[in-house]
Amino acid sequence: MKPSIPKGTRDFLPGEVRRRNYLFDVIRKHFHRYGYQPIETPVMENLSTLTGKYGEEGDRLLFKVLNNGDFLSKADAQNLADKDSNAVLPQISKRGLRYDLTVPFARYVVMHQNDLAFPFKRYAIAPVWRADRPQKGRYNEFYQCDADVVGSDSLLYEAELTQLLDAVFAELGLKAVIRLNNRKILAGLAEIAGHADRMMDITIAIDKLDKVGEAGVEKELLERGVDAAAVDVIKQFLGVTSLDRVAPLLADSEIGRQGIAELQTVFDTVGPLTNRLEFDVTLARGLNYYTGCIYEVAVDTDAHPNIKMGSIAGGGRYADLTGIFGGRDLPGVGISFGAERVYDVLEELALFPEDTSHDLDYLIVCLDDETLLHGFQLLGKLRSAGHHVDLYPTAAKLGKMMKYADQRNVPKVIIIGSREAQSGRYTVKDMGSGEQEEVEF
Amino acid sequence: MKPSIPKGTRDFLPGEVRRRNYLFDVIRKHFHRYGYQPIETPVMENLSTLTGKYGEEGDRLLFKVLNNGDFLSKADAQNLADKDSNAVLPQISKRGLRYDLTVPFARYVVMHQNDLAFPFKRYAIAPVWRADRPQKGRYNEFYQCDADVVGSDSLLYEAELTQLLDAVFAELGLKAVIRLNNRKILAGLAEIAGHADRMMDITIAIDKLDKVGEAGVEKELLERGVDAAAVDVIKQFLGVTSLDRVAPLLADSEIGRQGIAELQTVFDTVGPLTNRLEFDVTLARGLNYYTGCIYEVAVDTDAHPNIKMGSIAGGGRYADLTGIFGGRDLPGVGISFGAERVYDVLEELALFPEDTSHDLDYLIVCLDDETLLHGFQLLGKLRSAGHHVDLYPTAAKLGKMMKYADQRNVPKVIIIGSREAQSGRYTVKDMGSGEQEEVEF
Repeated sequence: MKPSIPKGTRDFLPGEVRRRNYLFDVIRKHFHRYGYQPIETPVMENLSTLTGKYGEEGDRLLFKVLNNGDFLSKADAQNLADKDSNAVLPQISKRGLRYDLTVPFARYVVMHQNDLAFPFKRYAIAPVWRADRPQKGRYNEFYQCDADVVGSDSLLYEAELTQLLDAVFAELGLKAVIRLNNRKILAGLAEIAGHADRMMDITIAIDKLDKVGEAGVEKELLERGVDAAAVDVIKQFLGVTSLDRVAPLLADSEIGRQGIAELQTVFDTVGPLTNRLEFDVTLARGLNYYTGCIYEVAVDTDAHPNIKMGSIAGGGRYADLTGIFGGRDLPGVGISFGAERVYDVLEELALFPEDTSHDLDYLIVCLDDETLLHGFQLLGKLRSAGHHVDLYPTAAKLGKMMKYADQRNVPKVIIIGSREAQSGRYTVKDMGSGEQEEVEF
Repeated sequence: MKPSIPKGTRDFLPGEVRRRNYLFDVIRKHFHRYGYQPIETPVMENLSTLTGKYGEEGDRLLFKVLNNGDFLSKADAQNLADKDSNAVLPQISKRGLRYDLTVPFARYVVMHQNDLAFPFKRYAIAPVWRADRPQKGRYNEFYQCDADVVGSDSLLYEAELTQLLDAVFAELGLKAVIRLNNRKILAGLAEIAGHADRMMDITIAIDKLDKVGEAGVEKELLERGVDAAAVDVIKQFLGVTSLDRVAPLLADSEIGRQGIAELQTVFDTVGPLTNRLEFDVTLARGLNYYTGCIYEVAVDTDAHPNIKMGSIAGGGRYADLTGIFGGRDLPGVGISFGAERVYDVLEELALFPEDTSHDLDYLIVCLDDETLLHGFQLLGKLRSAGHHVDLYPTAAKLGKMMKYADQRNVPKVIIIGSREAQSGRYTVKDMGSGEQEEVEF
């Protein structure tokens, strides 16, 4: 039998785990510093919690866990005879794997609201599962890194989360562009164009400006049934990157003015950043969900011209997180790092710190069996002093042991022969330079 | 709709996550220091990898993941009509949730053997899933913390893992008893008793000495068909805690002498420990699996008399990890921390460090709206300096804000009114002592 793992899942080698942990640790450090608290929810959730929260497509992409025991005993015989998978599903499965960290968070807040202090700031760095068709860069099992605050509509949190995005990418050494928009500006734009009811169509079309250009957006708007006069109004907004220039266009829309004012407050509050912060009126993001400011972060292609990668982080404000679970009205705002994509970019730009390339400070090798116990005792002393050390467990040929040191990517090898064991002076070889020196411990 | 989570799963509040992370971090720190490398495997494995590895009971307790899409389309109509769950299972499910970290590790070693340097030392700290009936202290989703080395039969690893167990419990402040035995001693004992073929029956019986006493063990041995003469031989071993006294009893068994010699080497090599190390001839542990030294760690009830808890860590040597997956013969040895149990003991003994009780250094509260922006700027400065700080996002009543500070368990609150905002001298209240002082930043 040749072993394998499911399509769309991955094994990670030690070096990959070290680099992934470096990335998660940087994100976690800033989440912590910014007052977001860690929570954990189960990997398995009840399907009643998950189903219907991600649209029809999402329901289809949920991984469902089969009930244990004689799972068919309670299934409907006619449904089974008809091979009606949809009808049988709820009869044989009541649990599924979480699809994101947001719906479990909403459930958590409702279930534990009496134990939480609001505003409640939480983070989670954890895997989620989606039965997408696996392809390059898209997995069935992947990590999300989310920070959210619920129970406040203060715009200070929008400013804080902008700083948090900036701080993480600054520490990673990855130049990013943080783009901001506000759903109220998009609502205002639709209203001004005389199509308040068509905000979705309009925003889907203008969101594609980057890809299809102004003519493409115009074509799509017309195809979606937006009339020519409205298209002319909308075109004034395209390519505008200054709040001051959009503000007059929205003067007649109350909700539009609100959106402008909110964004202005965020820009005025946020203070100096390491990365570029831009207003982008064409930024849309999951509009059925967000109600206020929305974020999207991309790699700054001025600084990193060869990187082709979509959004590497995003987020936004929502008016009511917990209503779907019968919770009281709780507004919130959150961000999410696309950790798998950020990892790929860091790898491509060789931005992982050198110390993620190995996990040992020293490897001890012994030239003969008689010195092995001596080596083992030195090993214990070095570990007690806090060093990360290993010992090659037999007195093998030096070449074989040095090859092992190479494979472990260890920076320094301590070589012990009978002379060294007697004198307590050891030969330490620097594996980078090849230089050897005698050291007394 | 009232939200819930599946039976046997848990949500963790921030304080619990901090304490769990403290425990995992201590274990991880020592794994790292001892040269064990992190690997990660998917939560979902192919059922072909998992099935048949844990016995019939284990197969039953695996969580199976339903195939996506029209899963019934390929199921056998007759099997469905018969509601034959066992026959239908492989037709509608090809993946399951991992049941432990050992079988995935064996699969991993075989699949990646060309990328690994042997001896290969790995650790994993990750959740596993078992469909046991949930009860106090037993969950369907729980963490395992494993360290293993494969590709060497050096007894130095047995000594090293004993030191590692000792180091972790020493740092946790939990006094433990580390018990060692060797499966070869048990095989020798069975041989000497004239029942080499009944080692399993004999060891199952003597493993119960703690619970049922010598008379109970004798009764069970006889019930299991061990003859009276053999029982007399076996009784000589019970209660013996010194290798020197067991050695002569096993003089006529080659495998028994080997076991004694191996344990003697480990005891001679291991050096001074913080916790008690004992030889326990009645220690059995999953015998179908282990072939050499075996470990079991319990709370030292001399030091902690009120703790009633079974094994909190264990492990042992196996002759061949990867054979089941067609790998070349790879001996190994490993240990596993019962993290959920250790957590409960640390909680009961109040051994978690004070700094796991909160995650903020400071909370800033502002007495009026005009000073909020000032507070937000101070917040940014303190965070840039590496402090963990939060800001109450509105100028609410002081009592309400102090209650929030209490709920967050923050040690110090910085209070800003218009006077403080102007002078840059802030009132800092120590939430423990209640004392206030003026501080300039």
